[in-house]
Formats: sequence, structure tokens, C-alpha cells
Amino acid sequence: MGDFIIKIICNDKKGLIYTISDVLLKNSLNIEKNNEYVDLENGKFFYRAEVKGDVKKEELREQLISLLPKESLDVKVLKKRKKDIIIMATKEAHALGDILIKHYSNELEANILAVISNHNDLKELVDKFNIPYFYISHQGLSRIEHEKRILKVLEKYQFDYIILAKYMRILSSNFVSHFKEQIINIHHSFLPAFIGANPYKQAFQRGVKIIGATAHFVNDNLDEGPIIAQDVIYIDHTYSWREMQKAGRNVESKVLAQAINLVFNDRIFVNSNKTIIF
Amino acid sequence: MGDFIIKIICNDKKGLIYTISDVLLKNSLNIEKNNEYVDLENGKFFYRAEVKGDVKKEELREQLISLLPKESLDVKVLKKRKKDIIIMATKEAHALGDILIKHYSNELEANILAVISNHNDLKELVDKFNIPYFYISHQGLSRIEHEKRILKVLEKYQFDYIILAKYMRILSSNFVSHFKEQIINIHHSFLPAFIGANPYKQAFQRGVKIIGATAHFVNDNLDEGPIIAQDVIYIDHTYSWREMQKAGRNVESKVLAQAINLVFNDRIFVNSNKTIIF
Amino acid sequence: MGDFIIKIICNDKKGLIYTISDVLLKNSLNIEKNNEYVDLENGKFFYRAEVKGDVKKEELREQLISLLPKESLDVKVLKKRKKDIIIMATKEAHALGDILIKHYSNELEANILAVISNHNDLKELVDKFNIPYFYISHQGLSRIEHEKRILKVLEKYQFDYIILAKYMRILSSNFVSHFKEQIINIHHSFLPAFIGANPYKQAFQRGVKIIGATAHFVNDNLDEGPIIAQDVIYIDHTYSWREMQKAGRNVESKVLAQAINLVFNDRIFVNSNKTIIF
Amino acid sequence: MGDFIIKIICNDKKGLIYTISDVLLKNSLNIEKNNEYVDLENGKFFYRAEVKGDVKKEELREQLISLLPKESLDVKVLKKRKKDIIIMATKEAHALGDILIKHYSNELEANILAVISNHNDLKELVDKFNIPYFYISHQGLSRIEHEKRILKVLEKYQFDYIILAKYMRILSSNFVSHFKEQIINIHHSFLPAFIGANPYKQAFQRGVKIIGATAHFVNDNLDEGPIIAQDVIYIDHTYSWREMQKAGRNVESKVLAQAINLVFNDRIFVNSNKTIIF
Repeated sequence: MGDFIIKIICNDKKGLIYTISDVLLKNSLNIEKNNEYVDLENGKFFYRAEVKGDVKKEELREQLISLLPKESLDVKVLKKRKKDIIIMATKEAHALGDILIKHYSNELEANILAVISNHNDLKELVDKFNIPYFYISHQGLSRIEHEKRILKVLEKYQFDYIILAKYMRILSSNFVSHFKEQIINIHHSFLPAFIGANPYKQAFQRGVKIIGATAHFVNDNLDEGPIIAQDVIYIDHTYSWREMQKAGRNVESKVLAQAINLVFNDRIFVNSNKTIIF
Repeated sequence: MGDFIIKIICNDKKGLIYTISDVLLKNSLNIEKNNEYVDLENGKFFYRAEVKGDVKKEELREQLISLLPKESLDVKVLKKRKKDIIIMATKEAHALGDILIKHYSNELEANILAVISNHNDLKELVDKFNIPYFYISHQGLSRIEHEKRILKVLEKYQFDYIILAKYMRILSSNFVSHFKEQIINIHHSFLPAFIGANPYKQAFQRGVKIIGATAHFVNDNLDEGPIIAQDVIYIDHTYSWREMQKAGRNVESKVLAQAINLVFNDRIFVNSNKTIIF
Repeated sequence: MGDFIIKIICNDKKGLIYTISDVLLKNSLNIEKNNEYVDLENGKFFYRAEVKGDVKKEELREQLISLLPKESLDVKVLKKRKKDIIIMATKEAHALGDILIKHYSNELEANILAVISNHNDLKELVDKFNIPYFYISHQGLSRIEHEKRILKVLEKYQFDYIILAKYMRILSSNFVSHFKEQIINIHHSFLPAFIGANPYKQAFQRGVKIIGATAHFVNDNLDEGPIIAQDVIYIDHTYSWREMQKAGRNVESKVLAQAINLVFNDRIFVNSNKTIIF
Repeated sequence: MGDFIIKIICNDKKGLIYTISDVLLKNSLNIEKNNEYVDLENGKFFYRAEVKGDVKKEELREQLISLLPKESLDVKVLKKRKKDIIIMATKEAHALGDILIKHYSNELEANILAVISNHNDLKELVDKFNIPYFYISHQGLSRIEHEKRILKVLEKYQFDYIILAKYMRILSSNFVSHFKEQIINIHHSFLPAFIGANPYKQAFQRGVKIIGATAHFVNDNLDEGPIIAQDVIYIDHTYSWREMQKAGRNVESKVLAQAINLVFNDRIFVNSNKTIIF
């Protein structure tokens, strides 16, 4: 695998791939993987490469910027590295636990800096793995006040992503606006079905034959952020909603694991309310 | 496989299975398959058996009725037989074609009596299989008037089920009320996601990573009838909505085939807005 | 849910369900769930019920035995309870970790009595959860000698099942014969594909488009025991075998979780080399 | 979508993408889609692009050839067009029927020139669609003699691919050698499981919980050709092998449809015994 990842967004134009590969070649870089997608509807070009060689990050970035269309231009030259993350959770242990185990066994491409929860239930579990746990109750607090306290903890850390591993509170627009394309949530339904509270109860009442989970970036609109990964399982009439919930937890953990693996490997572009995944 | 199917719904009570199997035993019937489900929430009992032996349908039914709780009681004793069906379609050939081929190769547990369409596009295809085709245009007609003409054709036939194989018009409450639990529709999304018109365009715009199809009984509320079968396929950002539609057609045909196979084998109970499938 | 589970195997005969439900009714038991399957090929009857009421286990069992065909008869009356299990593992943490987390968060219908491994790598993880860890190296030992040491540890415990959570050693016929239908293994392929060592490497070399996992009871013949659960994921040409392995781990954990959930709820019958799951 | 497809295989080397995109740019071609894969193990480079513009096929091809590494070089410049195909089948109608319906409704990116079968059962169906049907019985003939007669029919046609839509005879090495990477088969199991005769019976006997289908290019070794597409469905103990077969047919049709759609759109490279799919 290459040592660096190059991610480019700009307005589409003839010759972009030529221009980019010319720059990479002149820098004696070897392209090991190379994906490109053109959103024809919006005239936008998305490019990602994994390259090997002696990269001078800032120089390379400037060369690319100087030659590419200025409109909507976004060039990233990233050294491959483990991401630093904060996990937020509430009471359920499965999604958090799955990440803790992967982290422990060195399968997660991220370092967990801290876990923040509005309950104390998960402290004992997190303590086992020697990760700081911040219990910030929302009891008796306005949403704004509660989030202020969370933000205060977040300020102590330099992190790349916030992972909502079944954090069961809605985040305000204000909170979300601080972390654009940095918050990943796991929702316990195959969105856009069963938006809102208790999707398993909704699924039970509707009598569906599949249930699922959706990992997505969090934006202003609840349950409407760009979808990263989805999966489903088959159920039947014998499932109570509690049994759906139990079966669903395995899908939730799996979909979240899949999504954060993509995110941590810089494989995702956000294209307005959609994701492009290379 | 047994020659008869017995389907019973009634209020739940201790000893029902004993009572039923006692009756079956006294009639010297051999139970080859036997399923039961209790909806504890609503205190309802559902039972289905496949039996072999010399069944006197009406006698057996009366014996069962005389011994079972009267509340919500529904007893069916059915001889196994191919069902008679009417297919309604519009312009798309895939779902209809799949049924025609299965019918032709004797894989469908049904006889197709006729195909009704609001367009003439599918006539040539249906003619190949020597099945009557009724072109009943909706052009310039009110919904009521259009349905009146359809009902007039339906009156000529004695049928068990109407299969909507991508019939793209909404049926009125009045029409539906004539055929309770007799109309099966294939909807081109994993309901309840993307209710209404052009689900693939909606799916494209929402940027989902799975698309699917749902077969359901049709009731008064559009896209809200009891779900029989659902399935999904995985897609990615490279799919235009037309490509989703194309890929989706395979799932539509497959899910509809699965659903009508269950229906034709008398394996489904409707429990208010849900299905119980044995 | 009922408090007791009744599991019956015997030769098939007319009137079995009547006989059984008569006994249950006379004992004033309420049948809350009730499944039956007849293996017509071998003339065998399988029955499982969940019942509620005041059960005298031994009496009920004797009544049933006295009335049912003696051939191949096996009657179990089980009080619902958490099962006691021993986990065996080698070096990989994912399958074990998934079970530890479910156990910790009270989602596992079992108590973990101990973990046995032929390596010491997982000790630190298991210690976090205060579960006894037995490191029994196979280095320099014959298979028989190694298993003797394991058996010595096992003797200390009264357990229902041994779960092989990626235990990477073959167990001898002798070992297996001690624990008939008591050992559950997770194999990292969709059996019977890729039997034997390193299935992911085999899958990579064969160029398959799906990989999977299989949970099965362990019997004498390696990878040939009765299959309990299987699942797959889609892969493509970009996956190295290491990436297949990484992606596959999520399926392994999920399939093992699904299988042991069925086992712990007494929902499985073994019918020679197959399982019947109610 | 672009009007031309460029497919290149050669030994890997720094600057290949630059070289190719330079040529395309100088020919004033617009790259609308562009995929590349490097098989690092074997040092091989695979490239596919969809381009728009005024392409002089032979000139473009020569320019590319003159600038790319000579080792293992294979350059194709293809105008997008429907492929011409011959279908071979035996007695089962489902896979053939699915293709006929797609062809009829203009969803197949191919023209069906003829159907060849070793039985006469499917003639009536094929006749409905006005496609030539050649009944070439194998009765009393050696494999070589039978294939000679098939080859004689094939000689009359100029075709791109032979689709084996449940053709149940083994083709000789000699036959296969005439049509390298031109024969696509649907096998009724998730290969490499259940190689050989009657996979559903094998699956039934093994007691698997998933069954599936595999579409692959046919090469010398039976059931060992490069895999194009695979899919599975879930089954349980209640399925007889006949019921598996019936359920499996839907997967067979779906997987074959998926595979030939990829083939007809020139999206596949064969890399020794694997496929690369863009």
C-alpha cells in the first residue's frame, strides 16, 4: 500500500487526470491505487490516489492547486496514519464494545482518546481498557448547557472524528456545525425508513420482513446526513420488538465498524448529501 | 406433502392444539406439517396444518368450528390446488415476464386467466403465451370509470388472486374493498422507505447504499398493506437512478415470485396489518 | 415466554401431537410456542414446545415417555436457564471479544466459566473481565498429551457447552467423543467450500466474489459437523487475502453469535449430520 | 456515458496513467469513467476508460501500443454496441426465459442470434420469440461428434459470446479452446462448494443453511473458470432438495443476468483464473 493519500475535488474539465498524473510522475511518485468519479449532474470531479515515494506534502499540494480549476477546489495530501477519535455513547455496550475490542486487538485504524456519555453505565467497561471516561449527565440541563459541557471536554483533545456509538441524544445544529464531516452516527434502521425514536418498535408495528442499520455523517438535519454504509437482516412474525432490537444490535455494530473503517482510511468524499466511496 | 391444508384463526385458549389434533386424529388424518403462532399481545391463535387422508371438507370444518372458541373464529379446509389468477400490469415486462415464464414451465402454482393493462405495450408478449389480454386505457377516464371497466372484465372470471405486476395506477378504496386479502402488489422500494412515486429517484437523491422491493397485500392505504416479502441489493455512488431501476427490477421480480409462491401455497395469515407466514 | 422447554425426538407415527398436547393439557400447562418437524425420509419426528405452568420435570418426562413410541425416543424437559460455557480460543480476539462484551452487558444467555487457550495472547483481555484464563501451550506436546491437560481443566467445571471461538487446533476424535453435541465451532468459510487451513488464502486464490463463515457442532470429521448458521459478505478483486480476513472477522463473530444464541435457547435438534432449528 | 471503451493490460510501470491520459487528451477525448487496478503480486496493470469524442479506433490503438510496455500488452478500443450472442440450454426454462424476456423488453445489451439445445423441450418457448432454435441431440453420439455438430451451427454465426443458460453437458477442452473468455456459464452452487453433478442434492445432504449460484467463464477445468458473480439465499431444514432447486432457480437467473450485464458492457478483465470487474 502507498504511504500517502491524495484526495482532490474540483469542477470537472477535460485533462484533469493527465494534469494530476503528470504532477505525480514529476514528483517520482508511484500510484498504487487510483480512483476517480465524475458527478455529471453537477459537473464535479472526485479523485483519490494512494501513492508511494518521497512526498513533500505542502509542495505537492501547492503544485496541484496551481494547475487545477479553482472552482470548488479542495486538495488534500495525507500521510497514512491512525486517526484520533472520541466516542460518544449512552447506555448500550455493543457498538462501543465492538470498537473497544477492535482497538484493543489493534484492528482499528484509530486511537480512542476518550469516551463521553450522558450516563455512567459504561464507565466500568471503558475503565477496563484504560480509556478516559467522561460522564456528563444531561439531567436538569438544557440541550445547550449539556453540549457546552461536552464541548469543554472535547476542547482538551485534538481529534479527527467523533463516533456516536449509540449516543441516544439529538445534537444541536450549533454542536454539529463545529465538526463538519467529522461526526459519524449509527442509526438503528435502514434509513430513510423509521426516522426518529425507537425504530424497532416502529418496525414491529409496521410488520416489515427486514430490519437494518445505517451509518451516516451527522449534519443539521436529524437522520438526514450523508449515508456511509447500510445493511439489513431478515426477520419474521415471531420476533417481538425486543428480539428485533437484540438481532439488530449485531447489524448496528457491523455497519458502524464497516463505516468507520472506510472513514479512517480516507476513502470517503462527501458530495452534498451523499457519499462517494473509493 | 399432505393433500389438504387446514387454516384456523381464533381467540387463544388453553388446549387448542389438543382439540384440533384430537379432531384430526379421529378423522384418521395424518399431520405432515403443523405450525402454530400465538399473538400474545392480541390473544389470537393461528394454526396451519398439511394433512393427508380422506378428508370430508365440510364435515371436518364443522367439527372444528363446533369445538373451537367462537370469537374471531375462521376455519378453512382447503384442497391443494393451483390458484386462478388475474395479472394487472402497465408497461414494464420484467415482473409479468417472470411470471409468464414460470407459468409456461409449470413452476407457478397458478393458472393465469387473463392479463389486464392500462396500456397496450405488453399485449404482444402476453399473446405469445395465448393468454387473454385486456387493454383498458385510463386516458380521459375518471378513476372510478376506469375501474368500472376493469371490474367488468373481472366479473367474467372466477379467480383467487389479482397480482399487480408493476401496475402503476393507484386503486381506489372501493376497488380494493371488493378483493380483501386477494390483491398482491410489488412495490419498488424496501417499504416504508420511499413511499409514493418514483422510489428509485428518491433513493438516488437520498444517496442510500441499499435499494429493495416489497411485496404486500393491497388495502385501503397506499403502500401500507400487510408486507409479505422484502429483499434488497447493495448499490453505490456510481449508480444513476436509471441504473438503480435496472438493477432493482431483478429484485422486484424475485420478491414478487417469492411472495406469490407463499400465497399460492396458502402459507400466509393476515393479522391486522401484518402477515404471519408458516 | 414459557418457563419450560420440552424437546422430543421419536419415530414418526399418527397422533403424536395429540398425545403430547393431551399430556400437556392434563398437566395444566399452557403451550406458548410449539414447533414440529417430520423427517419423512427417515421417519423421524421432532417436537419442541415452550410451556408455562407448574411443571414437575421428572413426572412430566415419564408421562411423555410412557406414551410415546420407544424407538429412537429422546424426551427432554428443560427449565429455562442461562447455560454454563467454557470458551476455547487461540490468538485472535474478535470472536472471543464479541462474546465477552455480550456477556458483560448481559446479552448472552450463558455464564462464561473459563477461557482456555494454547497461547497467552488473550490472557490480558480475559483478565479484564475477571474470568479464569488457562494457558495450556501445545508446544512440545503430542495432541493427546495436550488434550489431556485441557481435559484436566475441563474436569473442574460443570458446563453445558464448549465454544471454539477461533481455536485453531484440530481436536482429536477422542476429545470430541466426550462432548457430543456440546462443542460449537466457528469456521472461517462458507462450508463445504475451503475446508482445511487458511480458507481466506484459498478464497483469494480461487477468486471468489463472496466469503463467509459457518458455525457448526464439532464431530469426528473435521469441518463436517452439523451446520448451525452460515452467512456471507460480498468482496471484489481489490481485496488481498489479509483484507478478506479482516472483513471476514465481522462475519465470523456475527455467525457465531447467532449460532450460540440458538444453542443456548435450546432451539436446535441434531438429526444425524444436519440441524433442525425451531 | 462515453461512446468508446478502452481496455488495457500490460506490465506495471511508473507513469502508465500519465502516458495513457496524455494520449487520450491529445486525441481530444473526454474521460467519463476511468478505473485502474494493479496486481502487485504479478506486476500487472489493468486499465479501463469510457471516453467521449471523435475516436479513430485503429489510430488510437496504435498510439497507445507504441507508448506502453510491450510485455503482456493487450490494448482494446471498443465502440459501445450490443453484443451478439448464442445461448445454449438443455431443458430448464428459467435462465433462458429470463434472458428472452430481457431481450424482448430491450433490457439486454445483446442480440440473441440463436439458441442451441441438446433437447427439444425449449423449442416452443424460443419459437415464440422468433429466434432460431437448433436441436442437436447428443443421443448415441460421442462428445466429440456431438460438439462437431454444434460447432457446425456456430460457424454460421458471427457472435461475441456463448451463454450457457443451464446447459447440462460438459464441454470438451477442444470445444472450449475455440472460445477463450467467450463462454459464460451459470453453476447452481456457490463455487467451490458442490462441484459436479446435482449440487442441490449435495447441499441437502450436507445440511447447509445457504445455497447459491456462480456465474463464471468456462475454461478447461470444469467448474474452475474465473468467477464473475455469485449470490446466495438462506434456506432451512424444511427444504427438500427439490424445494432448494426451485428456490435456487431464482438465484441462478439473477446471478447470470448480473454476470452477462457486466460482460456485455466490457467491464471485466480476466487475470489468470480470476476476474477484475470495473
